[in-house]
Amino acid sequence: MSDTSSAVQDYYPEDVAHCFGCGRLNEDGHQLKTVWEGDETVSRFRPAPHHTAIPGYVYGGLIASLLDCHGTGAAAAATLRREGREIGEGEAPRFVTASLQVDFLKPTPLGPELVVRGRVLEINDRKVVLEESLSAEGVVTARGRVVAVRMPEQMIPSK
Amino acid sequence: MSDTSSAVQDYYPEDVAHCFGCGRLNEDGHQLKTVWEGDETVSRFRPAPHHTAIPGYVYGGLIASLLDCHGTGAAAAATLRREGREIGEGEAPRFVTASLQVDFLKPTPLGPELVVRGRVLEINDRKVVLEESLSAEGVVTARGRVVAVRMPEQMIPSK
Repeated sequence: MSDTSSAVQDYYPEDVAHCFGCGRLNEDGHQLKTVWEGDETVSRFRPAPHHTAIPGYVYGGLIASLLDCHGTGAAAAATLRREGREIGEGEAPRFVTASLQVDFLKPTPLGPELVVRGRVLEINDRKVVLEESLSAEGVVTARGRVVAVRMPEQMIPSK
Repeated sequence: MSDTSSAVQDYYPEDVAHCFGCGRLNEDGHQLKTVWEGDETVSRFRPAPHHTAIPGYVYGGLIASLLDCHGTGAAAAATLRREGREIGEGEAPRFVTASLQVDFLKPTPLGPELVVRGRVLEINDRKVVLEESLSAEGVVTARGRVVAVRMPEQMIPSK
Protein backbone atom coordinates (compact mmCIF):
# COMPACT_ATOMS: atom_id res chain seq x y z
CA MET A 1 0.00 0.00 0.00
CA SER A 2 1.14 3.49 -0.72
CA ASP A 3 1.37 6.10 2.02
CA THR A 4 1.56 9.45 0.29
CA SER A 5 1.93 11.21 3.62
CA SER A 6 5.50 9.97 3.77
CA ALA A 7 6.97 11.12 0.48
CA VAL A 8 10.71 11.63 0.65
CA GLN A 9 10.55 14.97 -1.17
CA ASP A 10 8.54 16.41 1.73
CA TYR A 11 11.67 16.06 3.86
CA TYR A 12 14.26 17.67 1.58
CA PRO A 13 15.91 20.61 3.34
CA GLU A 14 14.11 23.85 2.46
CA ASP A 15 17.03 25.34 0.55
CA VAL A 16 17.15 22.41 -1.88
CA ALA A 17 13.41 21.80 -2.40
CA HIS A 18 12.87 23.88 -5.56
CA CYS A 19 13.43 21.32 -8.32
CA PHE A 20 10.95 21.76 -11.18
CA GLY A 21 10.42 18.01 -11.25
CA CYS A 22 10.15 17.20 -7.56
CA GLY A 23 10.56 20.26 -5.35
CA ARG A 24 7.62 20.86 -3.03
CA LEU A 25 8.47 24.59 -3.08
CA ASN A 26 8.35 24.97 -6.89
CA GLU A 27 4.82 26.16 -7.56
CA ASP A 28 5.26 25.91 -11.33
CA GLY A 29 6.71 22.40 -11.26
CA HIS A 30 5.57 18.78 -11.19
CA GLN A 31 5.99 18.28 -7.43
CA LEU A 32 6.65 14.57 -7.90
CA LYS A 33 6.36 12.48 -4.72
CA THR A 34 8.14 9.20 -4.02
CA VAL A 35 7.04 6.67 -1.41
CA TRP A 36 7.90 3.10 -0.42
CA GLU A 37 5.67 0.21 -1.42
CA GLY A 38 7.46 -2.78 0.10
CA ASP A 39 10.91 -2.94 -1.46
CA GLU A 40 9.95 -0.68 -4.34
CA THR A 41 9.92 3.08 -4.55
CA VAL A 42 6.86 4.45 -6.33
CA SER A 43 5.87 7.80 -7.84
CA ARG A 44 2.56 8.61 -9.48
CA PHE A 45 1.94 11.47 -11.88
CA ARG A 46 -0.91 12.51 -14.14
CA PRO A 47 0.33 14.46 -17.18
CA ALA A 48 -1.46 17.60 -18.37
CA PRO A 49 -3.11 17.68 -21.80
CA HIS A 50 -0.25 19.80 -23.18
CA HIS A 51 2.36 17.15 -22.26
CA THR A 52 1.86 15.64 -25.67
CA ALA A 53 4.33 14.10 -28.15
CA ILE A 54 2.45 12.87 -31.16
CA PRO A 55 -1.19 13.67 -30.29
CA GLY A 56 -2.49 11.01 -27.88
CA TYR A 57 0.89 10.18 -26.37
CA VAL A 58 3.14 11.56 -23.63
CA TYR A 59 6.28 13.40 -24.79
CA GLY A 60 9.56 11.70 -24.03
CA GLY A 61 11.03 14.60 -22.10
CA LEU A 62 8.39 14.25 -19.40
CA ILE A 63 9.03 10.53 -19.13
CA ALA A 64 12.76 11.20 -18.78
CA SER A 65 12.05 13.87 -16.17
CA LEU A 66 9.85 11.54 -14.10
CA LEU A 67 12.46 8.77 -14.20
CA ASP A 68 15.18 11.28 -13.29
CA CYS A 69 13.39 12.83 -10.32
CA HIS A 70 12.01 9.51 -9.11
CA GLY A 71 15.61 8.27 -9.23
CA THR A 72 17.00 10.97 -6.95
CA GLY A 73 14.03 10.57 -4.60
CA ALA A 74 14.44 6.81 -4.50
CA ALA A 75 18.16 7.22 -3.82
CA ALA A 76 17.33 9.42 -0.83
CA ALA A 77 14.71 6.98 0.46
CA ALA A 78 17.07 4.02 0.06
CA THR A 79 19.84 5.86 1.87
CA LEU A 80 17.53 6.60 4.80
CA ARG A 81 16.48 2.96 4.98
CA ARG A 82 20.11 1.82 4.82
CA GLU A 83 20.73 4.03 7.86
CA GLY A 84 17.80 2.44 9.66
CA ARG A 85 15.54 5.45 9.23
CA GLU A 86 12.05 5.75 7.82
CA ILE A 87 11.03 8.64 5.57
CA GLY A 88 10.15 11.52 7.88
CA GLU A 89 12.69 10.66 10.54
CA GLY A 90 14.81 13.77 10.04
CA GLU A 91 15.75 15.51 6.83
CA ALA A 92 16.19 13.44 3.67
CA PRO A 93 19.59 13.46 1.93
CA ARG A 94 19.71 15.22 -1.44
CA PHE A 95 20.98 13.41 -4.51
CA VAL A 96 21.71 14.56 -8.04
CA THR A 97 21.76 12.47 -11.21
CA ALA A 98 25.09 11.45 -12.68
CA SER A 99 23.56 9.45 -15.53
CA LEU A 100 20.15 8.55 -16.86
CA GLN A 101 19.28 5.87 -19.39
CA VAL A 102 15.75 5.70 -20.81
CA ASP A 103 14.46 2.98 -23.11
CA PHE A 104 11.15 3.90 -24.69
CA LEU A 105 9.53 0.53 -25.26
CA LYS A 106 6.24 1.71 -26.71
CA PRO A 107 4.20 4.90 -26.93
CA THR A 108 2.86 6.06 -23.54
CA PRO A 109 -0.82 7.02 -23.74
CA LEU A 110 -1.64 10.58 -22.62
CA GLY A 111 -4.48 10.63 -20.10
CA PRO A 112 -4.01 7.90 -17.50
CA GLU A 113 -1.94 8.32 -14.36
CA LEU A 114 1.66 7.21 -14.88
CA VAL A 115 3.32 4.97 -12.31
CA VAL A 116 7.10 4.89 -11.86
CA ARG A 117 8.59 2.03 -9.86
CA GLY A 118 12.20 1.71 -8.77
CA ARG A 119 14.49 -0.94 -7.34
CA VAL A 120 17.95 -0.43 -5.91
CA LEU A 121 20.67 -2.31 -7.77
CA GLU A 122 23.63 -0.94 -5.87
CA ILE A 123 24.09 1.39 -2.92
CA ASN A 124 27.02 2.80 -1.00
CA ASP A 125 27.77 5.98 0.96
CA ARG A 126 28.16 8.11 -2.12
CA LYS A 127 26.16 6.50 -4.93
CA VAL A 128 22.90 4.67 -5.61
CA VAL A 129 22.13 2.79 -8.83
CA LEU A 130 18.48 2.07 -9.59
CA GLU A 131 16.43 0.38 -12.25
CA GLU A 132 13.01 1.81 -12.97
CA SER A 133 9.88 1.16 -14.95
CA LEU A 134 7.17 3.55 -16.08
CA SER A 135 3.70 2.21 -16.76
CA ALA A 136 0.27 3.41 -17.81
CA GLU A 137 -2.81 1.31 -17.02
CA GLY A 138 -0.56 -1.58 -15.99
CA VAL A 139 1.47 -1.64 -19.20
CA VAL A 140 5.18 -0.86 -18.92
CA THR A 141 6.01 1.64 -21.66
CA ALA A 142 9.52 2.74 -20.61
CA ARG A 143 12.42 1.50 -18.53
CA GLY A 144 15.14 3.54 -16.93
CA ARG A 145 18.42 3.27 -15.12
CA VAL A 146 19.69 6.05 -12.90
CA VAL A 147 23.03 6.60 -11.22
CA ALA A 148 22.42 9.09 -8.41
CA VAL A 149 25.19 10.64 -6.33
CA ARG A 150 25.13 12.71 -3.15
CA MET A 151 24.75 16.35 -3.97
CA PRO A 152 28.18 18.02 -3.96
CA GLU A 153 28.57 20.43 -1.03
CA GLN A 154 29.43 23.33 -3.34
CA MET A 155 25.97 23.09 -4.97
CA ILE A 156 24.22 23.98 -1.74
CA PRO A 157 23.07 27.59 -1.99
CA SER A 158 24.52 29.88 0.65
CA LYS A 159 21.90 30.84 3.17
CA MET B 1 26.54 30.12 -39.14
CA SER B 2 23.10 29.36 -37.90
CA ASP B 3 20.03 29.99 -40.03
CA THR B 4 17.05 29.86 -37.72
CA SER B 5 14.66 30.36 -40.63
CA SER B 6 15.29 26.77 -41.63
CA ALA B 7 14.53 24.82 -38.49
CA VAL B 8 13.46 21.26 -39.22
CA GLN B 9 10.55 21.43 -36.75
CA ASP B 10 8.94 24.12 -38.91
CA TYR B 11 8.43 21.45 -41.58
CA TYR B 12 6.91 18.66 -39.51
CA PRO B 13 3.49 17.72 -40.89
CA GLU B 14 0.76 19.66 -39.08
CA ASP B 15 -0.78 16.58 -37.48
CA VAL B 16 2.49 15.68 -35.73
CA ALA B 17 3.71 19.14 -34.70
CA HIS B 18 2.32 19.26 -31.15
CA CYS B 19 5.22 17.88 -29.11
CA PHE B 20 5.65 19.75 -25.82
CA GLY B 21 9.39 19.86 -26.41
CA CYS B 22 9.56 20.76 -30.08
CA GLY B 23 6.13 21.15 -31.67
CA ARG B 24 5.57 24.55 -33.25
CA LEU B 25 1.83 24.11 -32.61
CA ASN B 26 2.15 23.49 -28.84
CA GLU B 27 1.62 26.93 -27.32
CA ASP B 28 2.47 25.72 -23.81
CA GLY B 29 5.66 23.94 -24.86
CA HIS B 30 9.32 24.69 -25.46
CA GLN B 31 9.09 24.96 -29.26
CA LEU B 32 12.69 23.81 -29.66
CA LYS B 33 14.21 24.51 -33.09
CA THR B 34 17.03 22.56 -34.75
CA VAL B 35 19.19 23.86 -37.58
CA TRP B 36 22.36 22.84 -39.39
CA GLU B 37 25.68 24.49 -38.63
CA GLY B 38 28.08 22.73 -41.00
CA ASP B 39 27.98 19.04 -40.13
CA GLU B 40 26.44 19.65 -36.72
CA THR B 41 22.82 20.06 -35.77
CA VAL B 42 22.24 22.82 -33.23
CA SER B 43 19.38 23.85 -30.94
CA ARG B 44 19.39 26.84 -28.61
CA PHE B 45 17.11 27.27 -25.62
CA ARG B 46 16.91 29.70 -22.73
CA PRO B 47 15.36 28.09 -19.63
CA ALA B 48 12.77 29.93 -17.54
CA PRO B 49 13.56 30.87 -13.92
CA HIS B 50 11.30 28.05 -12.68
CA HIS B 51 13.33 25.39 -14.55
CA THR B 52 15.48 25.03 -11.48
CA ALA B 53 17.05 21.96 -9.84
CA ILE B 54 19.05 23.05 -6.84
CA PRO B 55 18.66 26.85 -6.89
CA GLY B 56 21.00 28.32 -9.51
CA TYR B 57 21.07 25.24 -11.73
CA VAL B 58 18.91 23.74 -14.50
CA TYR B 59 16.86 20.67 -13.56
CA GLY B 60 17.91 17.44 -15.22
CA GLY B 61 14.54 16.69 -16.76
CA LEU B 62 14.78 19.78 -18.95
CA ILE B 63 18.27 18.80 -20.07
CA ALA B 64 17.00 15.31 -20.93
CA SER B 65 14.06 16.83 -22.79
CA LEU B 66 16.27 19.13 -24.86
CA LEU B 67 18.61 16.26 -25.77
CA ASP B 68 15.61 14.07 -26.63
CA CYS B 69 13.84 16.57 -28.88
CA HIS B 70 17.05 17.80 -30.46
CA GLY B 71 17.75 14.14 -31.22
CA THR B 72 14.53 13.53 -33.12
CA GLY B 73 14.93 16.85 -34.96
CA ALA B 74 18.52 16.07 -35.87
CA ALA B 75 17.47 12.63 -37.10
CA ALA B 76 14.91 14.27 -39.40
CA ALA B 77 17.44 16.81 -40.67
CA ALA B 78 20.05 14.11 -41.28
CA THR B 79 17.54 11.98 -43.15
CA LEU B 80 16.64 14.90 -45.41
CA ARG B 81 20.32 15.56 -46.12
CA ARG B 82 20.92 11.89 -46.83
CA GLU B 83 18.15 12.12 -49.43
CA GLY B 84 19.80 15.17 -50.98
CA ARG B 85 17.27 17.61 -49.55
CA GLU B 86 17.74 20.75 -47.52
CA ILE B 87 15.47 21.60 -44.60
CA GLY B 88 12.39 23.25 -46.09
CA GLU B 89 12.38 21.20 -49.28
CA GLY B 90 9.15 19.39 -48.55
CA GLU B 91 7.87 18.02 -45.27
CA ALA B 92 10.37 16.73 -42.71
CA PRO B 93 10.15 13.07 -41.61
CA ARG B 94 9.03 12.47 -38.04
CA PHE B 95 11.15 10.41 -35.67
CA VAL B 96 10.54 9.13 -32.16
CA THR B 97 13.12 8.22 -29.55
CA ALA B 98 13.89 4.57 -28.91
CA SER B 99 16.56 5.26 -26.31
CA LEU B 100 18.16 8.22 -24.61
CA GLN B 101 21.34 8.27 -22.54
CA VAL B 102 22.27 11.39 -20.61
CA ASP B 103 25.53 11.88 -18.70
CA PHE B 104 25.38 14.89 -16.42
CA LEU B 105 29.01 16.00 -16.26
CA LYS B 106 28.59 19.02 -14.05
CA PRO B 107 25.82 21.32 -12.83
CA THR B 108 24.28 23.44 -15.63
CA PRO B 109 23.91 27.09 -14.61
CA LEU B 110 20.38 28.49 -14.83
CA GLY B 111 20.30 31.77 -16.74
CA PRO B 112 22.44 31.53 -19.89
CA GLU B 113 21.17 30.19 -23.20
CA LEU B 114 21.82 26.46 -23.53
CA VAL B 115 23.30 25.11 -26.75
CA VAL B 116 22.75 21.52 -27.86
CA ARG B 117 24.97 20.16 -30.63
CA GLY B 118 24.56 16.82 -32.39
CA ARG B 119 26.56 14.60 -34.69
CA VAL B 120 25.30 11.57 -36.57
CA LEU B 121 27.07 8.34 -35.64
CA GLU B 122 24.96 5.99 -37.71
CA ILE B 123 22.09 6.40 -40.17
CA ASN B 124 19.95 4.07 -42.26
CA ASP B 125 16.41 4.08 -43.64
CA ARG B 126 14.83 3.32 -40.28
CA LYS B 127 17.18 4.53 -37.56
CA VAL B 128 19.55 7.37 -36.71
CA VAL B 129 22.07 7.26 -33.85
CA LEU B 130 23.43 10.58 -32.62
CA GLU B 131 25.85 11.86 -30.03
CA GLU B 132 25.09 15.21 -28.46
CA SER B 133 26.53 17.78 -26.12
CA LEU B 134 24.81 20.46 -24.08
CA SER B 135 26.73 23.56 -23.09
CA ALA B 136 26.24 26.81 -21.22
CA GLU B 137 28.57 29.75 -21.88
CA GLY B 138 30.88 27.45 -23.85
CA VAL B 139 31.23 24.82 -21.12
CA VAL B 140 29.88 21.34 -21.89
CA THR B 141 27.80 20.26 -18.88
CA ALA B 142 26.03 17.18 -20.30
CA ARG B 143 26.47 14.62 -23.04
CA GLY B 144 23.79 12.54 -24.68
CA ARG B 145 23.25 9.66 -27.03
CA VAL B 146 19.96 9.18 -28.85
CA VAL B 147 18.65 6.32 -30.94
CA ALA B 148 15.82 7.76 -33.05
CA VAL B 149 13.54 5.66 -35.22
CA ARG B 150 10.99 6.58 -37.86
CA MET B 151 7.63 7.18 -36.27
CA PRO B 152 5.50 4.02 -36.54
CA GLU B 153 2.59 4.50 -38.95
CA GLN B 154 0.06 3.53 -36.29
CA MET B 155 1.08 6.53 -34.17
CA ILE B 156 -0.08 9.00 -36.80
CA PRO B 157 -3.40 10.46 -35.63
CA SER B 158 -6.29 9.81 -37.97
CA LYS B 159 -7.30 12.98 -39.73
